[in-house]
Amino acid sequence: MLFSRYLLPVMKETPADAQIVSHQLMLRAGLVRQTAAGIYAWLPLGLRVLNRIADLVRREQDRAGAIELLMPTIQSADLWRQSGRYDAYGPEMLRFQDRGGREMLYGPTNEEMITSIFRDCVRSYRDLPRTLYHIQWKFRDEVRPRFGVMRGREFLMKDAYSFDLDAEGGRASYDAQFTAYLRTFAALGLRAVPVRAPTGPIGGDLSHEFHILADTGESEVFYDSALDAVDLADADAPAMLRGLYAMEAEEHAKVENCPVPPERLASRRGIEVGHIFFFGTKYSHAMGLQVQAKDGTQVTPLMGSYGVGVSRLVGAIIEASHDAGGIVWPDSVAPFDVGLINLRPDDALCATAAAEAEARLEAAGLSVLHDDRDARGGEKFATMDLIGLPWQIIIGPKAAAAGLVELKRRATGERHEVSLDDAMARLKGPRAA
Amino acid sequence: MLFSRYLLPVMKETPADAQIVSHQLMLRAGLVRQTAAGIYAWLPLGLRVLNRIADLVRREQDRAGAIELLMPTIQSADLWRQSGRYDAYGPEMLRFQDRGGREMLYGPTNEEMITSIFRDCVRSYRDLPRTLYHIQWKFRDEVRPRFGVMRGREFLMKDAYSFDLDAEGGRASYDAQFTAYLRTFAALGLRAVPVRAPTGPIGGDLSHEFHILADTGESEVFYDSALDAVDLADADAPAMLRGLYAMEAEEHAKVENCPVPPERLASRRGIEVGHIFFFGTKYSHAMGLQVQAKDGTQVTPLMGSYGVGVSRLVGAIIEASHDAGGIVWPDSVAPFDVGLINLRPDDALCATAAAEAEARLEAAGLSVLHDDRDARGGEKFATMDLIGLPWQIIIGPKAAAAGLVELKRRATGERHEVSLDDAMARLKGPRAA
Repeated sequence: MLFSRYLLPVMKETPADAQIVSHQLMLRAGLVRQTAAGIYAWLPLGLRVLNRIADLVRREQDRAGAIELLMPTIQSADLWRQSGRYDAYGPEMLRFQDRGGREMLYGPTNEEMITSIFRDCVRSYRDLPRTLYHIQWKFRDEVRPRFGVMRGREFLMKDAYSFDLDAEGGRASYDAQFTAYLRTFAALGLRAVPVRAPTGPIGGDLSHEFHILADTGESEVFYDSALDAVDLADADAPAMLRGLYAMEAEEHAKVENCPVPPERLASRRGIEVGHIFFFGTKYSHAMGLQVQAKDGTQVTPLMGSYGVGVSRLVGAIIEASHDAGGIVWPDSVAPFDVGLINLRPDDALCATAAAEAEARLEAAGLSVLHDDRDARGGEKFATMDLIGLPWQIIIGPKAAAAGLVELKRRATGERHEVSLDDAMARLKGPRAA
Repeated sequence: MLFSRYLLPVMKETPADAQIVSHQLMLRAGLVRQTAAGIYAWLPLGLRVLNRIADLVRREQDRAGAIELLMPTIQSADLWRQSGRYDAYGPEMLRFQDRGGREMLYGPTNEEMITSIFRDCVRSYRDLPRTLYHIQWKFRDEVRPRFGVMRGREFLMKDAYSFDLDAEGGRASYDAQFTAYLRTFAALGLRAVPVRAPTGPIGGDLSHEFHILADTGESEVFYDSALDAVDLADADAPAMLRGLYAMEAEEHAKVENCPVPPERLASRRGIEVGHIFFFGTKYSHAMGLQVQAKDGTQVTPLMGSYGVGVSRLVGAIIEASHDAGGIVWPDSVAPFDVGLINLRPDDALCATAAAEAEARLEAAGLSVLHDDRDARGGEKFATMDLIGLPWQIIIGPKAAAAGLVELKRRATGERHEVSLDDAMARLKGPRAA
């Protein structure tokens, strides 16, 4: 992609109304623009990140055996009356009437709708267990939207719902999602701490939140510092993490005999990026979902629900991965793999070398943002650092004459003058890993 | 994908409330379920088709140089007051207030929002021309939603918007989308007729609708029958199609001297699947979008907008491609490439042969729905015909013992007993084409 034909409005100044660093950087790096309070348009660069995160979430859901469908954003109030939540849900629910005067709402979550779809489609024990998920926009009318996409009103969420015939099966479905979550966050380059959570208005008796540790987190998490030592690449990591103590401050304060010795108890700020619940028959019972069991009797399936804040993760990743120069994207979610800077677009040798580098990188399956603008080198360097692509390839007249390029790793700042072949070999290494 | 672990609720009976064949087949084949009047959940099989169509639309937009972003579904009424359309737009616009009493709406289209984003991001002639697009859910509160996803209320649309410095550039952007549309419909296996259209409430002076010819179309199209002879694979097809006469009945009736000799004038029913407009400075002027020209003056960009009904296309394709047995998906949008029927899942030889076939097909990059259910052969055949996958591979005990499978082409019903190798060779042929 040529920068000169893209839509990437970067800002030099920090916008005054953005309080936290991810919000500032998302605006400055041209990822989003606010279109109303707590509502954002995703500009081309931001959309690429959002899509890559959604794809990783999808990959791990599919791997866990969950099946994707897509529910609409607008729901009927009648559906929520069946569960009794229409009146119970507060003013965060955006309610309105259609032209026929029917009460509708913009879905903040989908327990009722998925239960009704399952009730409509499934009759027999043969069709269970099932975990269904979708990735769809939700709306919660926050009283004070802030922190950019971290606490917006219209947001993208992956929500999965499990249906099982018995408690043992339900627990297995819960565990499968628990593991999928840890794999997802690891794939995103994040260390997530599973925190035992109260179940709140969704109900049920088992729940975990997943927190990314970052200084700007909205809540304080107390946890067994053994968590910090768990290798996320280890196949046993989910079981190990699950066994270790972690609680939000408010819940931790209620614990009378904390099982973690004081010298091992750590505390840090956390950003909640996922929340999973097992709530048994709460919705299936209220909404009359039953299936025929093997012995011919009717049974009420047990359910769980599993949410990940996909758009929120864009902000959370930036909170966890940035420096003074700007964003430092993990390889797995970067909007482009490589930022190619041509320092002298007016120089024939540089233009040829840059065009060749772009073509060869793309032929090798790497995505490239090629800064071909007529601008000063300093501005190009600053822009490329700000938008945080993992690798930069810099082409100037001296190196081009010698058949070389400069390869820079954004995270470390390390720079090497190498041939394009060498640069490509280094680039492909960490990406394949 | 194993059928026994999927969510694919097919129906034998035709639902009484579905009037047209695409709506009937979408319900019967388990593609969608209605969740409220004119609002549908996309079940797993339907979502796969929707995604494939969206991907083809995206591919042709990218090829035409358009850049993808993503605008939110909820918009502020203030934005629409800037263009004057807030009061002009009828009751099809879903309007409501948020908890703070601010007037909001669910976007039925995005001219205002994209103009405001462009105004916010772009200052200089250097950043033009640009065509930006997104694929996002829209809402139009139809007074009488019907025909399933063909006239739903919540629907998926690709809408693109072009920004140019002068009329010549604007015309070139319009032509690029015109060509992209014909390529898109051809890739979807559809013959689309570009119909010169009045511009209506969007405004402007140049507009085309794209109609799929099908007996259940909602409007009548009069056209030069030379259109039927144009080879869509021909690179000159867009120019040829554009030069040929085509008008909706109402507009055709107003034409005083039809340029087509009576013997060449044909008429058929058409389903509108795309609509493009060039409307100059209508929105940019009203909303104060200006950029600095090369000579330092401020100029008002000229705009066009270009819509494709992505979810409506699912229905339109079925209207154009079905038979008495069910849907006949074009290869390019089929939810799975192959339906694999194991006639005897309880037979060890059949189970092994089916598992091997599934693994080899998937390793070759083909998607497979493997019917491993404990059900009668007749039911499996009927289901596979109903859901319309382009190819079927049938494994029964006799053929399996001889190391053979039966390969069936859904569109023609042609069947051959062949080795799996031969089947795969035939399968990959048309797919690559």
